[in-house]
Amino acid sequence: MNDKRYVYLFEDGSRDMVDLLGGKGAGLSEMKKVGLEVPPGFTITTEACLDFLKTGNFPEGMLEQSLEALSVIEKQSGKYFGNTSNPLLVSVRSGARISMPGMMDTILNVGLNEDTVKGLASLTSNPRFAWDSYRRLIQMFGTVVLGLRREDFEEVLDSAKKSRGYRYDTELTADDLMEVVENFKGIYRKSNLEFPSEPRKQLTLAMEAVFRSWNSERAKAYREINRLPDDMGTAVNVVTMIFGNMGNDSATGVAFTRDPNTGEKRLFAEYLVNAQGEDVVSGVRTPKSIDDMRTELPAAYNSLIEAMKKLEGHYRDMMDIEFTVERGKLYMLQTRVGKRTARAAIKIAVDLVNEGLITKEEAILRVSPETLNVTLYPQVKKDPSRTPLGKGLAASPGAAIGKLVFSSERAIELAKEKIDLVLVRPETTAEDVRGMSVSRGFLTQKGGMTSHAAVVARAMGKPAIVGAEAISVDPIRGTLSIDGRVFSEGETVTVDGTTGEFFEGEMELESSQASAETEILLSWADGVRKLGIRANANTPEEAIMARKNGAMGIGLARTERMFLGTERIKIMRSMIMSDSPEKRKAELEKLEPMQKNDFIEFFRTMEGFPVIIRLLDPPLHEFLPDKEEILTEIHALELKEASGQKLSQDDSARKSELRNLLGVVRDMQEFNPMLGFRGCRVGIVYPEIYEMQVRAILEAALSAKKEGKEIIPEIMIPLVGHSNEFRIIRERLEPVAEAVLSGEDLKYEFGTMIEIPRACLTADSIARDADFFSFGTNDLTQMTFGYSRDDAEGKFLSSYIENKVLKEDPFASVDQEGVGALMKMAVEKGRSARKNLSVGICGEQGGDPETIKFCHRIGLDYVSASPFRIPVARLSAAHAALEDRN
Amino acid sequence: MNDKRYVYLFEDGSRDMVDLLGGKGAGLSEMKKVGLEVPPGFTITTEACLDFLKTGNFPEGMLEQSLEALSVIEKQSGKYFGNTSNPLLVSVRSGARISMPGMMDTILNVGLNEDTVKGLASLTSNPRFAWDSYRRLIQMFGTVVLGLRREDFEEVLDSAKKSRGYRYDTELTADDLMEVVENFKGIYRKSNLEFPSEPRKQLTLAMEAVFRSWNSERAKAYREINRLPDDMGTAVNVVTMIFGNMGNDSATGVAFTRDPNTGEKRLFAEYLVNAQGEDVVSGVRTPKSIDDMRTELPAAYNSLIEAMKKLEGHYRDMMDIEFTVERGKLYMLQTRVGKRTARAAIKIAVDLVNEGLITKEEAILRVSPETLNVTLYPQVKKDPSRTPLGKGLAASPGAAIGKLVFSSERAIELAKEKIDLVLVRPETTAEDVRGMSVSRGFLTQKGGMTSHAAVVARAMGKPAIVGAEAISVDPIRGTLSIDGRVFSEGETVTVDGTTGEFFEGEMELESSQASAETEILLSWADGVRKLGIRANANTPEEAIMARKNGAMGIGLARTERMFLGTERIKIMRSMIMSDSPEKRKAELEKLEPMQKNDFIEFFRTMEGFPVIIRLLDPPLHEFLPDKEEILTEIHALELKEASGQKLSQDDSARKSELRNLLGVVRDMQEFNPMLGFRGCRVGIVYPEIYEMQVRAILEAALSAKKEGKEIIPEIMIPLVGHSNEFRIIRERLEPVAEAVLSGEDLKYEFGTMIEIPRACLTADSIARDADFFSFGTNDLTQMTFGYSRDDAEGKFLSSYIENKVLKEDPFASVDQEGVGALMKMAVEKGRSARKNLSVGICGEQGGDPETIKFCHRIGLDYVSASPFRIPVARLSAAHAALEDRN
Repeated sequence: MNDKRYVYLFEDGSRDMVDLLGGKGAGLSEMKKVGLEVPPGFTITTEACLDFLKTGNFPEGMLEQSLEALSVIEKQSGKYFGNTSNPLLVSVRSGARISMPGMMDTILNVGLNEDTVKGLASLTSNPRFAWDSYRRLIQMFGTVVLGLRREDFEEVLDSAKKSRGYRYDTELTADDLMEVVENFKGIYRKSNLEFPSEPRKQLTLAMEAVFRSWNSERAKAYREINRLPDDMGTAVNVVTMIFGNMGNDSATGVAFTRDPNTGEKRLFAEYLVNAQGEDVVSGVRTPKSIDDMRTELPAAYNSLIEAMKKLEGHYRDMMDIEFTVERGKLYMLQTRVGKRTARAAIKIAVDLVNEGLITKEEAILRVSPETLNVTLYPQVKKDPSRTPLGKGLAASPGAAIGKLVFSSERAIELAKEKIDLVLVRPETTAEDVRGMSVSRGFLTQKGGMTSHAAVVARAMGKPAIVGAEAISVDPIRGTLSIDGRVFSEGETVTVDGTTGEFFEGEMELESSQASAETEILLSWADGVRKLGIRANANTPEEAIMARKNGAMGIGLARTERMFLGTERIKIMRSMIMSDSPEKRKAELEKLEPMQKNDFIEFFRTMEGFPVIIRLLDPPLHEFLPDKEEILTEIHALELKEASGQKLSQDDSARKSELRNLLGVVRDMQEFNPMLGFRGCRVGIVYPEIYEMQVRAILEAALSAKKEGKEIIPEIMIPLVGHSNEFRIIRERLEPVAEAVLSGEDLKYEFGTMIEIPRACLTADSIARDADFFSFGTNDLTQMTFGYSRDDAEGKFLSSYIENKVLKEDPFASVDQEGVGALMKMAVEKGRSARKNLSVGICGEQGGDPETIKFCHRIGLDYVSASPFRIPVARLSAAHAALEDRN
Repeated sequence: MNDKRYVYLFEDGSRDMVDLLGGKGAGLSEMKKVGLEVPPGFTITTEACLDFLKTGNFPEGMLEQSLEALSVIEKQSGKYFGNTSNPLLVSVRSGARISMPGMMDTILNVGLNEDTVKGLASLTSNPRFAWDSYRRLIQMFGTVVLGLRREDFEEVLDSAKKSRGYRYDTELTADDLMEVVENFKGIYRKSNLEFPSEPRKQLTLAMEAVFRSWNSERAKAYREINRLPDDMGTAVNVVTMIFGNMGNDSATGVAFTRDPNTGEKRLFAEYLVNAQGEDVVSGVRTPKSIDDMRTELPAAYNSLIEAMKKLEGHYRDMMDIEFTVERGKLYMLQTRVGKRTARAAIKIAVDLVNEGLITKEEAILRVSPETLNVTLYPQVKKDPSRTPLGKGLAASPGAAIGKLVFSSERAIELAKEKIDLVLVRPETTAEDVRGMSVSRGFLTQKGGMTSHAAVVARAMGKPAIVGAEAISVDPIRGTLSIDGRVFSEGETVTVDGTTGEFFEGEMELESSQASAETEILLSWADGVRKLGIRANANTPEEAIMARKNGAMGIGLARTERMFLGTERIKIMRSMIMSDSPEKRKAELEKLEPMQKNDFIEFFRTMEGFPVIIRLLDPPLHEFLPDKEEILTEIHALELKEASGQKLSQDDSARKSELRNLLGVVRDMQEFNPMLGFRGCRVGIVYPEIYEMQVRAILEAALSAKKEGKEIIPEIMIPLVGHSNEFRIIRERLEPVAEAVLSGEDLKYEFGTMIEIPRACLTADSIARDADFFSFGTNDLTQMTFGYSRDDAEGKFLSSYIENKVLKEDPFASVDQEGVGALMKMAVEKGRSARKNLSVGICGEQGGDPETIKFCHRIGLDYVSASPFRIPVARLSAAHAALEDRN
């Protein structure tokens, strides 16, 4: 006999038991514990679910324990399950450890049948209510438990209303509803099914359905998108029905203890009188403001205010609450830590510290780096000359520009072509989550601030406008109509989730200003983090932005981007086409003053902070035009000739120039330029290039120093794979540097990118000569995986992620198992040879939170990220340090 | 006072002191020890040399110790240095630890001056001899010690002969030579120099000159080419002069204890009557066969035979000897282990075992893998229809086809363009060594079997013909004349070093047959080695060759080469251009029977041995034509149209086909195909390709098995970098395999190439699913270094080796420090997850001896090499095992 416990009455659980009881079950128990009014009920554990999913049967003892708990509820409520005069009705609700809103099943009003419905009618003296509850049960049971088509039930309801000339469901009388019930049962019969009239049968089938819904397609998709584990399982909550639809003294609603959109400390709630919960969440009826409740249902209102205060104090966080008022009495049906916009998350975290509820460290950990990142997203720039197409509720802030798409399926298709999309739906449901995950922003016709679209958008950190009732969306034909104009798939719109306005075409965007709370939170993060923060910046403008965002130095300035101006690229090309070191030097001399000027600006901006300048890295042929372009131009000139035209003198000259260029391009062409003649390889074969660059760097540094600024230049050699490369280059460049300084006191360093696997494997040898290391994780990832990024992303990387070969794009977040193993080795070997070796990262992944945590763990000195990622890097580094304390 | 010993009398040294006394000094001491007649003398140590080279002065005490030793010699010889009536003359000879033939300096007849020459004349009653000795000293001293021009002295000699109508030097009388001496001194005076008449002055200057010659340009070049260390230094040997030029009872010669060319056990020696050693070595006079000596100088001949027997028994090896006969008495002037051709090395090693002088293990270690390799070089195929241009001495066997080149400098220039060269010289000297090292073979007009050209050629393992006296070589004009025909630089010849014949143009070559001794040596090696030996073979023909050479299985059969036939590539292209899996499958079905047939042949050949077949590896676009080719063809058609011609129907069809193809090629084009969509990446995205291949492999295996053969198919997945790739593919292919077998009992395995750095770093995960590993060191080297082999070899690799960034080409021999570290890690991690994991190597480096030794050390199970490298691999593996025992 299995004596394992699968069932807990609410009074037996607590919030610590969330793994076992799920979020909803643990929340109900916890509310009971702090003295709030919770309907009698019990929770069946997630263990039972997992067991059921494995065997297809309830585990031994589970059903018995449930029936036992049911009899306790009967006593507590004074109602009896299946009793015809005083029937107990229950809801059967899912509830996983982590909230998956709307993804799994719920069945209400379990316990009603032809007999008990009459008992309920007489007990409540409200036959309309009883029959409405009954038709809801049959409808829900049919679709959820038995998989009948939702549309068939809607059709019956619609035709019932239409034939009577009604507009709203509420106009249907008890008699009307009896007919509806009959017709609903007809839907069952058409599929050779029958609605089970036995309440216990209803209950067990409903419990099974909830368990099974853990593995529904939409639930699995949701977990995949949100990277949730598949082995949590869901609990089942059996809760005494409380009726918000018992008349005008009844209501149901949703409340947040603070504004989930802005974080402001104010009541943020919506409710519907005479309704059941699903009416609020689904967005089918647009709910009322909570302010009305104060007058309509004052006692319940006061209880709600008090409950919210209690819960926030108890949970030390902003809470999300579901409640129902039955005949004036407030019942709490659910509580959980409330989802919020990124901006709100930051404000709430900082406010809670100021209110003394949490510590600064807790506040830092409550804001995920990605959350912070979202607040830094660009916003629509105000433009008085542009009139919005329309306006809805500003459900999730930020700006999205994209092409219209009207279904999740099309969105997924189009996203493969890297098209920016705005998904437009009448309202969204769980089926739309996949489409939402590949779109930039959302616009819905219906729904409120707590509707599915709004909640998901805030969780995804994407802009959304909901309840834009002036628009009419036809998802089948794929059109959005407003004011007589019709827009179709592919037309571009701008969605402003901060104001709720949407525009035809593209609006100008502006980068977001960090809020005062963000600045405070980041200053706390700076006090905690161990990693230094530098920026990758290629222009003085980027350097300025980097400093403004809190970077303490430049981790990577790419000099080659400075060669791309029209004038400069001409000189570069002449340099490349030179056939002797002398000619090359002559061209390089022309570039030197330009480079020097670039560097002076840089040094001025980063005064007092170290600046790492990387010497020329890409293959020289990148500065030459593409072979096919040249061939095409030659071809065009030849066609002109062949068709009998005489070439002008200019054309003839151009043709011979092109032929010459073609020769050079052919000579320099490489099969795999990524692995070709670039980086320090060019530096070794053509020493004059690096010599010019080092002269320009140090002349610039001296010049800025003469302005009285403290200048810390660090010169970085790219693509070193063998210690001899570094040693030879350093031996050549040091005399050049000393010649520029000619005795002036200016400290400079020579270091190297670590971006070739062999450099990691031999880092000890390299560190004997190098002052610093900086991981170039873009190239390192390419070579460790053997992936060309440019090719992989178009050809197979998406298929690899889809097929779960890879968990994520290794160019976005460092592959810790492979690339990370090399990095760890390089740090250890490097420091074994040079104890105080400075080690950083300047690859693109340097701005990725997981990568930053990894860098902290393997002992890097700093991370260097794009200027706009600097705040995220600061926060991530603080998280890393705090997680390390545990 | 420094009491360090810098000077050793020959009786005080031994062969064990070779580091200190050099090869010549140690050899002289050892000969003395075993009772052979060695002229009195002493050796100044290599330590003294290194000290001198560092400070520019003899170390303290060295000169004193030398003079002391000199006085011992005086007593032993009964002659006195500088004594006018009974003068002692000495030679001052270099001698490093490792022989560097002809690279450093020697001065003979030191001690002669205007006074002692007269004493020598009367003592020997041979004024002509005395004055000839004196003029040789002045000539040698002038060129070697003072750097005067060799040509100036030759000119004096030539004009002395010409004016008297003489043909040979020997016709010059004592009086003639007195005049020559006067004119030689005039050469000194023209450079404001004087010949030092003081014998001690001569001696110390000669010693200094020998020390300094360690760092002469040619000596340094020789060490670089032969990879000898620069810090050995040379000893100086001061040896009582023995005169082979004292008349017809005197002689000088060189002998090998066995034939250095074939290894046969027979006397192999040459001598010149009335001559000094340099006359033999320089090739200026063509020496006599030793058979004549038996009658001309019978006593000396018998002593020589006895000495040779003694030395060979003592050294347990074939020895090289220099001797001089002075008035009938034999003196041994040098001995060392004799250089020999590769073929001879093998025969001698095997013979010495059979003669009981050495063990089998010693024999194995005496033949280096590269030596064996040389014997496997191709030979000129007999062709009775071709008449040779001429014939010379067959000095070093093998065949060379190349373009004529007449100087070392031009050879070096042309070799940069990868031109195969045959270097032709009147005779070669140390200055030619660089040119020889870049040429395929050599042809000289003068010189014998022990001339410079012959010795160096045998050491280099390159074919050479020497003493082809019928030709006339003009090195200045760059011509070779024979029978009235003149050949110039760039014309192609074939040199047959095995027969001594040379031909105009290219002769057909045939691969060499292994000798009986080679077979014996390899069978001994097989008994010793621990590594298994497999072959990389892509065709049944290669598989047959591999078995013949001793391979025990196939380590790599590349299936893609099987797709390159005219018919097959058409199907491949249709497959690639298919836009659905169904169409792809239809094309693959056409290829399947072809693949199956290929495999059946393979399996039959390798019956009883494992055969690893690798599934498709290259990017699919490799099967498509080049973009530029397509563009050019389209362009040609467009030009035709533009010039007013109407395109034929065929042309029009072709044009539209080309446009279509261009689209596909553009779509599939990759920036870095090496890192692109290839290997298992294609296998994952288009599963049907691997499925077809696995079906073909197993159907072929079953079919061969039905013939009663034991078949061991091993299926290899290329380019795995993540364990998920391997797992997913294996999970897909196993059902395919089982379906083919449908219950038949046939063992097969699934394994993977390890060729991506990440695969090494995560080898434990991969080994959980893979039955075997095989290192693909070509790709692994590319990715570990970040070198594209195709690009690096043309662009910077040669410059890297020249600049000593890299010691050698990592694509020829595995980079043990970097790539090797990853391999070691992969073996350890792989075996930690699967104890009996089979690990091999199938990269090109698998045939490289150093790589094979490394593979042995890190515990690989086998190496797989090209079929023609199999014997070398077997021997290398034996070396590895034997070296491991120590």
